[in-house]
Amino acid sequence: MEAIKGSLALDAMGGDMGPLEVVEGLKIAFLNGAGKFTDDPILLVGREDELRSALRTVGIQDDRRVKVIHADEVIGMDEKPMHALKKKKGSSMLVALDLVKSGDAKAILSCGNTGSLMGGGTIKLRPLDGIERPALATIIPSLKQPFVLLDAGANPESTPSQLMHNAILGSNFSRAVLGITQPRIGLLTIGTEEGKGGERIQETHRLLKEIGDVINYSGLIEGFHLFDSQVDVVVCDGFVGNIVLKSCESLFHVIKDYLKIELTRTPMRKVGAALCKGAFRDMKSHFSPAEYGAAPLLGLRAPVFKAHGSSNRAAIAGAIKVALTVIQHDISDRILKDLENAQKRIHVSRPHESES
Amino acid sequence: MEAIKGSLALDAMGGDMGPLEVVEGLKIAFLNGAGKFTDDPILLVGREDELRSALRTVGIQDDRRVKVIHADEVIGMDEKPMHALKKKKGSSMLVALDLVKSGDAKAILSCGNTGSLMGGGTIKLRPLDGIERPALATIIPSLKQPFVLLDAGANPESTPSQLMHNAILGSNFSRAVLGITQPRIGLLTIGTEEGKGGERIQETHRLLKEIGDVINYSGLIEGFHLFDSQVDVVVCDGFVGNIVLKSCESLFHVIKDYLKIELTRTPMRKVGAALCKGAFRDMKSHFSPAEYGAAPLLGLRAPVFKAHGSSNRAAIAGAIKVALTVIQHDISDRILKDLENAQKRIHVSRPHESES
Repeated sequence: MEAIKGSLALDAMGGDMGPLEVVEGLKIAFLNGAGKFTDDPILLVGREDELRSALRTVGIQDDRRVKVIHADEVIGMDEKPMHALKKKKGSSMLVALDLVKSGDAKAILSCGNTGSLMGGGTIKLRPLDGIERPALATIIPSLKQPFVLLDAGANPESTPSQLMHNAILGSNFSRAVLGITQPRIGLLTIGTEEGKGGERIQETHRLLKEIGDVINYSGLIEGFHLFDSQVDVVVCDGFVGNIVLKSCESLFHVIKDYLKIELTRTPMRKVGAALCKGAFRDMKSHFSPAEYGAAPLLGLRAPVFKAHGSSNRAAIAGAIKVALTVIQHDISDRILKDLENAQKRIHVSRPHESES
Repeated sequence: MEAIKGSLALDAMGGDMGPLEVVEGLKIAFLNGAGKFTDDPILLVGREDELRSALRTVGIQDDRRVKVIHADEVIGMDEKPMHALKKKKGSSMLVALDLVKSGDAKAILSCGNTGSLMGGGTIKLRPLDGIERPALATIIPSLKQPFVLLDAGANPESTPSQLMHNAILGSNFSRAVLGITQPRIGLLTIGTEEGKGGERIQETHRLLKEIGDVINYSGLIEGFHLFDSQVDVVVCDGFVGNIVLKSCESLFHVIKDYLKIELTRTPMRKVGAALCKGAFRDMKSHFSPAEYGAAPLLGLRAPVFKAHGSSNRAAIAGAIKVALTVIQHDISDRILKDLENAQKRIHVSRPHESES
């Protein structure tokens, strides 16, 4: 077998829309310049005949930036995650993860079974030294600039030190993907008055202040300021993060639906809506998750990018671009340094500190 | 002193916009028919001269549905809640709470200092027998019909039995205010698969199934379905509830701001926006918190209604209407019965149950 040295291992199977949509997304990503981030090819993993046929359909069968890696099986969306990991060693997801584990690829992107990807990623790739639990990061659009929220669901009950790790992970991810030099970090809570939010939040708040110069900590932030661009990274546990993220998506859908009904209620409104339909199209794409279609599981030896099961080609293209950007920045080194410096500051400050 | 037998004790001071705005709100509430819910007058509490002057300005100085109760002091928004409760016995908020405590009023509504109101309410009015912690309930608008979310911030770290109490409180509140006979109850979590969301959610899920016919329990609900009208009451702890509520408000604001910018970007869009401005006005009022401007602290011997500090007259009018509706339905009796029945079912089912 020839040497395979790749950049991203792209699991082409397992998404709701099949491998052709993934390959279409790959083509769009190349057209959008995603290829410039890497000299190594993208490893497209799945059933070889289906993938070669998809590449021909899309017209990139001869593109040297793509290499097909065959994998026989596919993990279905509804399979039990851990069961699938045991039974389907030959699945595209596990083959792709093995490519990352062996160093033949630097990250994985999949729109397949979330539980299998998170579980398989954690087992095969192992957390970075010093990280207790990986965290799922999402990029959320806002009025001026997007922000990173993490954890979006990987670790529902995070301890203060795990939340501190989330802050370090999010800071490095934001720097790499959004290009912010000193990302402002906020800790999500329910009131900025002293003692509010419970002991876990207070302890995390103290930790984040202690490691102050490792990250750019802005302090506590309430839900009311989530979309105010006061911070670049919002830190929370996976239970809160997942619910906030999904609730906001749910509200956005319902507002779109409401406007659709109201804007066709009278002939005059219909005319008006036609004249400004560009604004609604812009709104949909601005707040759409497609632009940054991947949520990475951070804190492993290599990042694991999860795209939504229903991702279309545009979302997949966005996800590929995000993944390649993170690969290019190679954030693991900096994360390890930050963890080490944070630990030093905590050790230094604790004995002297009289807690107020 | 003459006998004072009132319905709602309305703290007219302490809001950001002053007592005149509260009195304007009261007038709107009467115009909207809120007065029909009660024969007893509303007790307007605050500095008598200011209140009489406001009543004259608004033109309802002779309305027999209003009685002024003098209180010298005002608790400021920025005062430390517990400190203010101790120092300002003569404040409008504490005088209003005393009216409820003595039975002269049946509920209190205030747009003053949240912490003082919650703390003072809990201390003076005491929880209903069987309720461990009161919960803050909010009515949230959606596409078809609004739903109740609780706890919105009173009790950040709720136990399974406290979450079960929230379900019973929310069920009764929804029945009274939204007129839903068998409100469907959902437990907010991060995934409906077995074991997801942690032990606390799983235990609450078991409890809610056990008391099944006391409430109409629909099961677990994810954030993604929050605005889908799948349930009428969403149960969560005060940490999650407060963050979800405020995050959604924040998103709604940012979408409004985005549309304002985009709809004036070109002359054509401006014309279009003018033609369908009714749709945007409707959207703002439909999703505005003003219509149900009060969040009640439920589970006390009498409900304590908290309106936002920045409430304008419309929001205050909505709040008064909600408060009078709840007073009319006298939900405490039913809550006590539900608690008793729930307890019976748990006692009966536990010994026989082999937990799966």
